[in-house]
Amino acid sequence: MTNRDPFLAIDWGTTNRRIFRISGEGMIDHSVSDERGVLALAPSDFAGEVADIRRRLGDLPIICAGMVGSTRGWVELPYLDCPVRIADLAEGLHWVDEGRTAIVPGVRWMDDARADVMRGEEVQFLGAVQGGLAPADALLCQPGTHCKWATMVDGAIARFSTAMTGEVFSMLQKHSLLAAQMDASARVDDDFLLGVRHGQGGDLLARLFGARADRVSGLDKISSTASYVSGLLIGSDVGSALPDASVRVHLLAGASLGALYGAAIEALGSNYTLIDSEDAFVKGIHSIWSEAQ
Amino acid sequence: MTNRDPFLAIDWGTTNRRIFRISGEGMIDHSVSDERGVLALAPSDFAGEVADIRRRLGDLPIICAGMVGSTRGWVELPYLDCPVRIADLAEGLHWVDEGRTAIVPGVRWMDDARADVMRGEEVQFLGAVQGGLAPADALLCQPGTHCKWATMVDGAIARFSTAMTGEVFSMLQKHSLLAAQMDASARVDDDFLLGVRHGQGGDLLARLFGARADRVSGLDKISSTASYVSGLLIGSDVGSALPDASVRVHLLAGASLGALYGAAIEALGSNYTLIDSEDAFVKGIHSIWSEAQ
Repeated sequence: MTNRDPFLAIDWGTTNRRIFRISGEGMIDHSVSDERGVLALAPSDFAGEVADIRRRLGDLPIICAGMVGSTRGWVELPYLDCPVRIADLAEGLHWVDEGRTAIVPGVRWMDDARADVMRGEEVQFLGAVQGGLAPADALLCQPGTHCKWATMVDGAIARFSTAMTGEVFSMLQKHSLLAAQMDASARVDDDFLLGVRHGQGGDLLARLFGARADRVSGLDKISSTASYVSGLLIGSDVGSALPDASVRVHLLAGASLGALYGAAIEALGSNYTLIDSEDAFVKGIHSIWSEAQ
Repeated sequence: MTNRDPFLAIDWGTTNRRIFRISGEGMIDHSVSDERGVLALAPSDFAGEVADIRRRLGDLPIICAGMVGSTRGWVELPYLDCPVRIADLAEGLHWVDEGRTAIVPGVRWMDDARADVMRGEEVQFLGAVQGGLAPADALLCQPGTHCKWATMVDGAIARFSTAMTGEVFSMLQKHSLLAAQMDASARVDDDFLLGVRHGQGGDLLARLFGARADRVSGLDKISSTASYVSGLLIGSDVGSALPDASVRVHLLAGASLGALYGAAIEALGSNYTLIDSEDAFVKGIHSIWSEAQ
């Protein structure tokens, strides 16, 4: 088996998974997404899932990344400590059956005071740099339920931090007194940009109530509560993650979150480059696969 | 009828209500709490509720305050704009039936950019000052689901702001990825005080994920996630509401929230005085009743 052989890659997250058949040259032959994330599966289900994927997509080697390597997944793997490169991930692969099925380890950043962890995003971050989508020294951001900010130094993940931005937005939209007002999707509009500005004050809890009071009081400065609250949270996230306005952010995101984060970054005086996160994942996993041969 | 006559007062909130029989001199003869807050009732239920309360506690005049005067309550009353004094609340009483049953209006603070509202807390704030529990010029704080900070100037509510502190804590405890870790009550311990310090950085969303990463990474600096998260939120709330450390906070709270807020206020270099909020309510509602005669 050489790195010219095709293989299957699975980005196996908490609630979703994406499966790719990748050519030896690193191109996507075929891809499919479904909702069989690790929370939908028991540890004993994974061997059968993988066999089923081989029946559907070809009897090929498989490399999995993401929450599949967590305590909720197939096998719990230890984290690799920063700095971490592609070669470290390749060397740290856990082979469920030798040469056939492997899981990529997660990454940890830790000092005496603070720790952070990721499982899955490391493939995208390193893939973006490896594939030339981002420079070897750069600030990368992957928004989502848990938004990851990674500082790449000389092509390695040097350090990173995670914010609960997406999860808090979703909780507010489902469970808070703002729920009834947050009946639309967030988008880049005046309310979003007002939220971004208000998100810089460090008084997030008061600003959240302000979104309610604005409506109840009759002030009505805010037309779309969803946009405003999204702006507050993303503004707070970007404002505390950006070291200063001269730093360009390389944003691994789809169109919707990419537009929101991009607008917040620009509102705070910085610039961004949008990177396709699927592209980054495939470049990263292909590099790991090549390195592991 | 003079202000020497006894009356009934109801602090009628969203989920709970407290009913007091108050002597003409302003002493509590009898009090009872239940969960028949406005969300448990339809608008057409209130007349029957009040008749039932009179059957149980005496055929006396009734003054209600709180969410009973909101869009979800018995009658929706307009807000009085700051500055507001006891005399304004007495004059603004809405008589459901003349001389028998009245509702206290809520209070609004508004300028071109920001608005805030309260229904119920105004009675406690003004009662604390009227009853000599707090000075006529003071910063008052009433923690809870929605924590209210009121600046009293010359005995009036001059301005105020509200933070969603308690509601966000409760959502995190019930619905977030931290839920399983937040299985204890928050208390004043090293984790709480660490949270208060971390709550000053403006990176609340990252610090929340940090509580998860601390556990998963094996760093284990935080023993009680509930205490730490409570410290983060209360620390953020107090830090943004305190104008500077020379200002004493007059805290209208029970023992549990009083201890948490008091510890956060002291950790940030300020001082506080704990005030019994039931005492403040009774003093406030008795003053309104006396003024309305």
